[in-house]
Amino acid sequence: MALEVFWGSGSPFAWRVLLTLEVKRLPYESRLLEFSKKQHKSPEFLRLNPRGKVPVLKDGEFVVYESLAIMKYLDDKYPAVRLFGEDPETSARIMMSVCECASYIEQPTENVVRPIFARAAAEQRESIMSAANTLRDEYALLNAKLTGRRWLVGDSVTAADVVLYPQAAILLRALGKDEAASLGLKLAPFADYFPAVAQWMRNVEALPGFERTYPPHWR
Amino acid sequence: MALEVFWGSGSPFAWRVLLTLEVKRLPYESRLLEFSKKQHKSPEFLRLNPRGKVPVLKDGEFVVYESLAIMKYLDDKYPAVRLFGEDPETSARIMMSVCECASYIEQPTENVVRPIFARAAAEQRESIMSAANTLRDEYALLNAKLTGRRWLVGDSVTAADVVLYPQAAILLRALGKDEAASLGLKLAPFADYFPAVAQWMRNVEALPGFERTYPPHWR
Repeated sequence: MALEVFWGSGSPFAWRVLLTLEVKRLPYESRLLEFSKKQHKSPEFLRLNPRGKVPVLKDGEFVVYESLAIMKYLDDKYPAVRLFGEDPETSARIMMSVCECASYIEQPTENVVRPIFARAAAEQRESIMSAANTLRDEYALLNAKLTGRRWLVGDSVTAADVVLYPQAAILLRALGKDEAASLGLKLAPFADYFPAVAQWMRNVEALPGFERTYPPHWR
Repeated sequence: MALEVFWGSGSPFAWRVLLTLEVKRLPYESRLLEFSKKQHKSPEFLRLNPRGKVPVLKDGEFVVYESLAIMKYLDDKYPAVRLFGEDPETSARIMMSVCECASYIEQPTENVVRPIFARAAAEQRESIMSAANTLRDEYALLNAKLTGRRWLVGDSVTAADVVLYPQAAILLRALGKDEAASLGLKLAPFADYFPAVAQWMRNVEALPGFERTYPPHWR
């Protein structure tokens, strides 16, 4: 039975699962839920994930949610292309990078992105500026790490890249909105501030299947 | 060469690494850093982890930080006792539980615990009450999950238990302070509100080696 992925357009957590499937070249059936129709709160979906959150993976009768758990499950179950490394040391470097994204990038990204998308940037200016300061430091570290390198860990794409990319993409998406222009956040364009990160994003975007993962409502 | 663990008393993230080592029965050298002396910001320590955060594991020349990455590394490198499961489905259930702790327990726990320890509960009452509401829902879910079960996933202790336990313990520690008494948070004692969670905590506390992981300054 085919893998089924339940996702929502623009969710960075769902996006990483789609990227995982494409990079691992696994065939899957796409179940795009429409948040505006509350499809993620339908009784059918809540039977899969009681929290009503995407992404969810269904592999036959087996159901997994939480994006990192899905990614790891796919890597364990379908190991032909490995995203979490082959040996304990490489796996540890990848997991460190994955955890640093979760610990230091995800929350400040949400704190910048959410009020901009909600057109509430003026009211939450202080919180946005504080999160943007954190992100400038984090992207400077990432820029140093990626300088002269094609991927975050080792010589090929790994879970580290897959987890970070949608965070960077959604941040840039928000920074491109009129709502963000007057804030002067000094983060975008990445080509000016973090050129190695900008180049790395193009490397991810050149991966086979990347286009199929791009949020439909962003086009 | 022995494993070296750099940790700090009362850090729930360091605690889970100590528990991992004990449950896996791995010998290790304990390097207890004193936060009050800023030992985690010393040049020597910053060479191990530029963020100056515990826990850090040193295995010979190999250095890992970020608690989940350390736990996973130990499980990959020393697999005699497995904490992340033997097959993809069990591993996925364990990782889901680990991720749910990170996504839904850690931040609200910090939002309750930090102002209580800092004796700033009155000023941050609103934020504490909101976090406590979240935690009541989460511990109710955990209580249902643990009812009639000894461990969170399967029939033996796993990374799911090891990750959650220090979060529960630090929450109870904070709730026992005078500072917390007047808040009426309706979370403690667990024996009254979440009896299956209370019993599960005793199961963890009965693990061989648990005593060695207990925060020294809590005694």
